Amino acid sequence: MAEINKIIHQPARLRIMATLSAIEVDAELDFTYLRNKLELTDGNLGAHLEKLQTSRYIRIRKTFVGKKPRTYISMTRTGRRQFEDHIDALKAIIEGKTG
Amino acid sequence: MAEINKIIHQPARLRIMATLSAIEVDAELDFTYLRNKLELTDGNLGAHLEKLQTSRYIRIRKTFVGKKPRTYISMTRTGRRQFEDHIDALKAIIEGKTG
Repeated sequence: MAEINKIIHQPARLRIMATLSAIEVDAELDFTYLRNKLELTDGNLGAHLEKLQTSRYIRIRKTFVGKKPRTYISMTRTGRRQFEDHIDALKAIIEGKTG
Repeated sequence: MAEINKIIHQPARLRIMATLSAIEVDAELDFTYLRNKLELTDGNLGAHLEKLQTSRYIRIRKTFVGKKPRTYISMTRTGRRQFEDHIDALKAIIEGKTG
């Protein structure tokens, strides 16, 4: 039985992971795009991304486009698997298959 | 757009609400049954129930069966509606309909 993943369950992180899971494997999202889409502050999004990176669920790549710093985020295979397991756990709870 | 309900989102409370939502409207569950099903301690379940009661999502009825104290829990109409809204919000996130 899949279990609730407390790292992923937190609302902002759930939305980050859902957004990343919806794009192709190994594709990246731009930090600014994600911040605007999720309506989070830079600091808030940054803190949640760091937590997800520490758990090895995402990768953060910092680079420059011309002179502008850009940050790209992608989901790891571990992250994708953990996200899917978490969704399975939520579904099981909602459908009454577990406590 | 339905929003994540932070009271309900907490894992133990999500499981409590899902269990209550699966029974008939106005039906009650026994505290001991709920505790065993969810594998929570008395104190832990009690604290979560109190929080849900404070939000008026559940009703707690204490009574005696013979000389034994018994506690029964049921979901309010508000609780049922909030739970359903919360599930809608989760589904929207998972299906990528919102941030």
